[in-house]
Parts: sequence; structure tokens; C-alpha cells
Amino acid sequence: MEGDPEQGVTAAALRQMAETADPRLRRVMESAVRHLHDWAREVSLTPEEWLFGIRFLTAVGQGCTEARQEFILLSDVLGLSSVVNALHDDGLREAATESSLLGPFFREGALALELGDSIARHDAADLAVFGRVLDAEGNPVPHAALQVWQTGAEGLYDLQHRDLADMDLRGCFRADAEGRYHFRTVRPLGYAIPMDGPVGALVHAQGRHGMRPAHIHFLVGAPGYRELVTALYLADDPHIGSDTVFGVSDAPVVRPEAGLADSLHPGLPAIGYDFRLAPATEGETGGRVGADPSRLLAPVS
Amino acid sequence: MEGDPEQGVTAAALRQMAETADPRLRRVMESAVRHLHDWAREVSLTPEEWLFGIRFLTAVGQGCTEARQEFILLSDVLGLSSVVNALHDDGLREAATESSLLGPFFREGALALELGDSIARHDAADLAVFGRVLDAEGNPVPHAALQVWQTGAEGLYDLQHRDLADMDLRGCFRADAEGRYHFRTVRPLGYAIPMDGPVGALVHAQGRHGMRPAHIHFLVGAPGYRELVTALYLADDPHIGSDTVFGVSDAPVVRPEAGLADSLHPGLPAIGYDFRLAPATEGETGGRVGADPSRLLAPVS
Repeated sequence: MEGDPEQGVTAAALRQMAETADPRLRRVMESAVRHLHDWAREVSLTPEEWLFGIRFLTAVGQGCTEARQEFILLSDVLGLSSVVNALHDDGLREAATESSLLGPFFREGALALELGDSIARHDAADLAVFGRVLDAEGNPVPHAALQVWQTGAEGLYDLQHRDLADMDLRGCFRADAEGRYHFRTVRPLGYAIPMDGPVGALVHAQGRHGMRPAHIHFLVGAPGYRELVTALYLADDPHIGSDTVFGVSDAPVVRPEAGLADSLHPGLPAIGYDFRLAPATEGETGGRVGADPSRLLAPVS
Repeated sequence: MEGDPEQGVTAAALRQMAETADPRLRRVMESAVRHLHDWAREVSLTPEEWLFGIRFLTAVGQGCTEARQEFILLSDVLGLSSVVNALHDDGLREAATESSLLGPFFREGALALELGDSIARHDAADLAVFGRVLDAEGNPVPHAALQVWQTGAEGLYDLQHRDLADMDLRGCFRADAEGRYHFRTVRPLGYAIPMDGPVGALVHAQGRHGMRPAHIHFLVGAPGYRELVTALYLADDPHIGSDTVFGVSDAPVVRPEAGLADSLHPGLPAIGYDFRLAPATEGETGGRVGADPSRLLAPVS
């Protein structure tokens, strides 16, 4: 082979992949191989480092179980999930609420609650959340469905410390005819990603705290609109500017204020936020990162 | 976050990684994150494709066992192993034989044979191999050690179809005082990489044949010289120009010729090749791709 042998390998790899029948697979893999090789050359990757990387990725794969997806966690802490999410939002940015990551703690079958109810079954509510669901032009979306889930004051989701049957800090609401919603809850606490696996070891080696700032997840939908996966992040969390999984990105950041919802929930500090839904596009698959949670939670084959 | 949200995520990720204590880990991961994000943006990676990739990498990790390293296979078919190998050879290129991949079929404990012996225990030899082991200046390296292993006429290594105790088509030789070596064998056949896992599925989807051209592996060493892992590839193999793992790269390509070694092995077609060893450098770790086979064969933790 002529010329620079490393470049020769890249050219040979691209040549072999040129027969890929699926043009999209071809494009994605050609770019992947170029970047992979460029990275190795750029850092002069040594054989020892290569082997370390092989072992790291193997451990990440073998750390995946039905209950834990360590490769998604790796994608999250490297910012890839957030980049993909942001790419998916492109073109909707003007009109709709920025989406965020669904995360691994979404559950099917959360209780249907009445507007104003508390989603906290074990603790007294100390926070109200209210607002409206609007379309891209700012008109109310009547009877929009909202699903809410969050950590409690210990920074844990119900899945992490309660019996499976004991759903807590999650619920489904239906907005009223003017698109209004409101509910009560406890103030969520930020939390660390799982730090006991290979991804946690990487985050630790990078001198990162591994924390996510406190947030409340929302899944908002109505017929004719694109389902919105988002979260409200609390502005006064100490890690609001350094989310380990970059989920905050340009997602909504809110600040609880006293007196804001006194007419609905006297005496409780409140968060007010209006969601904006984009119209559903033709052939909408609902396949954004995490929009079909059953796929994320399904065992990886 | 201001500006383009995808770029914002990249900047935030690099900012978080800036506290990495190990400067080398910092450099390798910064470049990795830049290339990873650039790739996602360049191809506008969709959430469905992202999830497909997560599942693919998870399957690769879970396909790894003590007997099979599917992530090394992935690195091989994407050309990364060969790029790393070539990077490692930089600076030695002028003086020494180009190295190649060790591959997964190296074994400790191959029989010590006499010069001229056949490494084929089950079939009559139909090929001779001879030459010298030289230093970078072309002087003989006396009594250099050569370990040889290869597939037989079915394209299988002994490990793939014989009892573990029945070592075949491998052996250890010691060159004479003038660095000369010679032995007999059967002509090796090319073979397919393992195609029954996720990496095989990718190679198949890329319209690639998955074949490696026929070759004979060599591990050549002598005190004071850098251990050489290389292979002689047969020029008349139909896949010599399209090795699925890019191991040929600029490794030695040879052509058996009649009469070439008639003084040693009358009537056998022969391959003649002189190996050149680079001097050992200070602090040499023997850590090239595959140079320490015990690490590649060890279970991945």
C-alpha cells in the first residue's frame, strides 16, 4: 500500500464499506470510521490505551442488565445523548419547549390524579407547580395529558428505594379546557448518577462530581401534537451549571417563588411554567431519545 | 445556554472534563468527545439510530467471553486496530519489518522444533519457508527465536477444530548462528472472521465478504531487539487486496515460488523472507497491539 500507512488503512476501510446496500448505514459508518481513525491519529493512541479502551467498553457492555443500561449512561456523561436530543429539536426551537432526556426512571402506569392533588404519597407537599399547555401560537391545548415524575427530598426516585407496587412522586394529570394544570409535590433533590460501574469510574477519573441538578420530569401530549419529553430544572440547585449528563442544556430552568400560586395553593412556594407543543409532523414516530420508554427499558438483546 | 445548543453541549462537556487529573486521559477524552459530537452532527444522528447504536454496542460487549473478544473484532473490522498498529510502527518504518496483528489464535507452549522440520502434524508439507533474521543494518541476528502459527488447508487454526492437546500448524524455531531459519508447512488458506455475532452482522450489512487472506504468523525476538509480531500474506490469495481486518496494510506480502529452496527442500515451492528487527528502546514494554498475548487472551474484567 502506498503512502502513509495509517491513512492507507482509512482509505481501505472506506473502500470496503462503499458496497453497503443501505445508503444511510453507509453514510453513518463512513463518518464514524473517519472520526475514529482521526481521533486515534490525533492523540497517537498507544496499544496500551487501545487495550484499556477495549476493556472499558467490554465492561460497559457487560454492565448492562434489564435494570441498568450502562451504555446509555456512557452516552449521557459524554454529552452524546444531549447532542442527539438537541439535533432532534432543530426546527422546532422557535415554537416548542426544549425537550430534555427521559432518563431511566420513567414508569408506565402512574396513577391518574386530579388537578391540585399532591404526587407525594409519603411526605407533606412543600411546593406547587402550575401553568398551561399551549400550542406553538400560544393558544391553549385543552385537556392535554401531563405525566410527572421526580425524586423526593432524599434525591431518590420511588424505583430506587420503595416496593415496586408503591409508586410515589409520579402521576398523570389532565389539563382543563383552557390548558391549565396545577399540582403539589415535595421539592426534588439532585442526585448522583450510578457511580459504581465503569462509567462512574470514568466520571470520577475526570474529576467530575457525577451529580444531576434537581428537576421534575414531564411527558406532555395531546392528539395532533408532538409528544414533549422535558423537565423543569431548579435554578438554585448547586449543580445547575454542571449537570453530569448535560440534560439541562437549554431545557427550562425555573425558580420556586413564594406567593406565586397563593390563589390555588396558599402558602406554598410555587413554580409557574407554560409548556408549548409543536404540531405533529407527518409520519411522526415518537422515536425521539426516550420518547418510547418501553424500548429503553426493554432488555437489550 | 447561549447559541447553538448542540455546540453548547460540546463546550459544556469539555469544560467538565477540564478537571481531569491525568493529562493524558484528559487529552484522549477531549478529542474523543469532540469527534463523537462532530460525528453525530455531521450525520444528523437520529434518536432511532442512536438507540440502534446503543443496542449494537451492548450486544458487542455481551458477546465477549473468555474465548471471544467481540470488541477487538469490532476494532479490527473498522480498521482501528490496524491504525493503532501503524502508529506504533512510526519511526521504526525505515529499519524494521512492518508489524501486523497478533490475532486471537496465538498460543503459548508451541513445540520447539528443529530447523527444517514441518509444523504440520496431520498433513504432508507442500510449502517451504526460509530466510534470515537481520538487524536494522542488515547484519544477522544469531540464534533469534521465531514462533510460527497458521491455518491449514481448511482455513482453520488447530484451536478451531482439534483437541486442545493436539497442537498443529505451530512451532518454535531457533535461527542458526547466521540468523538463518527454514521450515516446512502446508499452504495456509484464508478464512472468515466469526460472522455469527453483532460484528459479523455489521460486516454483512456493509456488503463485505468478511474474509482474511491466507497468511503465516511470526513472532520474532532476540535479546536487545524489539519483539516483532508480523505475518507473511500470500500474494495470490483472492482477498489479498480486501482483508476484512486490514491486517495486510503494508505488512509483508510474499509469493511461493518453485525451486526457490531446492537446496534445502527439493521439489517444494518456497517462500523466502528476511525479517528485520529494531533495537529495543529504553523502557520498552512489549506492549504493542498483541505483543503481550497473555493480556489479549485474559478474561476481560
